[in-house]
Amino acid sequence: MIGNLYGVSLGPGDPDLITRRSWRLLQSEAYWTYPVKKRNGSSYALQIALQAGLTKPENSTELVFPMTHDKEKLVKYWLQAAQTVVEQIQQGHDVIFLVEGDASTFSTFQHLAKTVKSLDEDIRIETIPGVTSFNAAAARAEMPLADTDDTVAIIPAGYGLEMIDALLNDFDTLVLLKVKPILDDIIELLQQKNLLPNSCFIEKAGSPEERIVHDIVSLQGEKVNYLSLIMVSNNHHRKRGEMIRGCRKK
Amino acid sequence: MIGNLYGVSLGPGDPDLITRRSWRLLQSEAYWTYPVKKRNGSSYALQIALQAGLTKPENSTELVFPMTHDKEKLVKYWLQAAQTVVEQIQQGHDVIFLVEGDASTFSTFQHLAKTVKSLDEDIRIETIPGVTSFNAAAARAEMPLADTDDTVAIIPAGYGLEMIDALLNDFDTLVLLKVKPILDDIIELLQQKNLLPNSCFIEKAGSPEERIVHDIVSLQGEKVNYLSLIMVSNNHHRKRGEMIRGCRKK
Repeated sequence: MIGNLYGVSLGPGDPDLITRRSWRLLQSEAYWTYPVKKRNGSSYALQIALQAGLTKPENSTELVFPMTHDKEKLVKYWLQAAQTVVEQIQQGHDVIFLVEGDASTFSTFQHLAKTVKSLDEDIRIETIPGVTSFNAAAARAEMPLADTDDTVAIIPAGYGLEMIDALLNDFDTLVLLKVKPILDDIIELLQQKNLLPNSCFIEKAGSPEERIVHDIVSLQGEKVNYLSLIMVSNNHHRKRGEMIRGCRKK
Repeated sequence: MIGNLYGVSLGPGDPDLITRRSWRLLQSEAYWTYPVKKRNGSSYALQIALQAGLTKPENSTELVFPMTHDKEKLVKYWLQAAQTVVEQIQQGHDVIFLVEGDASTFSTFQHLAKTVKSLDEDIRIETIPGVTSFNAAAARAEMPLADTDDTVAIIPAGYGLEMIDALLNDFDTLVLLKVKPILDDIIELLQQKNLLPNSCFIEKAGSPEERIVHDIVSLQGEKVNYLSLIMVSNNHHRKRGEMIRGCRKK
């Protein structure tokens, strides 16, 4: 009997935002694995589980996923991680991989899962969905992520100002992730477009170190955390009226 | 002492996807309120709580939110619902409003909260975020909602084919909600763009009646459920390479 692999989403940081399913898996006999950026490094996902009052089981294993865009290097680490997991599973253990946020949303889990499957296609893999940082951000900032027929776009801010400007003409809600490198430029753009009252900056949404700043101009020149986003909601620039009324009636 | 109002997200339908926080609030002394489309109608949100094995407390109240786009009519119902809630809160009770999915994402809760606040600004309101249907859909379909630097757009399908076509040129992942009225047209468009292998249809994601169809052409001519979506993931049409490398290095 071989075990199963579970991608266990833990939500954005507050252990209370772990789902009942993930919670049960954390307390099962399953072996824990969790991502680190370098050997013996810290793991945000593991930290969430520990903050929930759980103790890391002795059979836990860290899996190294370095911060790089070098695909060749990444593939090597995915393979290494998958081999570790497959070995445990083939010994009959269920393995859970701890994921901050949601395992389908900007997560390493999908690469781990794919590589595990390529090594042994008999292994059953299940993804437990979780609360994303932008859902937590919307709740904490008391801004809708989407109302009625709204359109939503979520992009890493690194795509640059031109793309952000264009999307602000097309979407009711725009979520900009990882705003740190171009924060000042984004603030300027939102100011120009009179969108400051519609904007909110949220750092480490739903975690104990969370910071919410509605007056985003006050952040100009500041070095913010890597895990920070800006939400622009109820955007009045978006051209409305495109909804095909007929569709609603059908 | 007045009570508090909580928007309690219950996730997409599987009671196991309720967060620990929402779960505790469900089992607290708080009064339950839940949305129905008409008096004594069914409530999908309530159903999730009941499927979790909980019993509806005696002091529970249904709040009517009719399915209409008539803003004037809606405002009247929001006010009626808010008055009911404010009365309970002013009597010293905490009140929870049950929400399917996530309370910030296409939910009536934001309207209820705003109206409650307008009636009594001293009432403390808290939104508990939850797992959305599209996060559950991605997990169940085993498709990423977003990988690494991906861009994601989420829109009601009713905006029509022209807009869907345009977004398929700009986004890595496109989530089309409420596809029922124009399902056949969407399938044809995805076929034309060679995106069928990247597409998946999910009905009532994360609920006991969930249905996942990878071969979406097989759905042609079928009348599907109202709560159904199509995810297009890893879209090869999206023009890549726009990411500003410099931003990553900063």
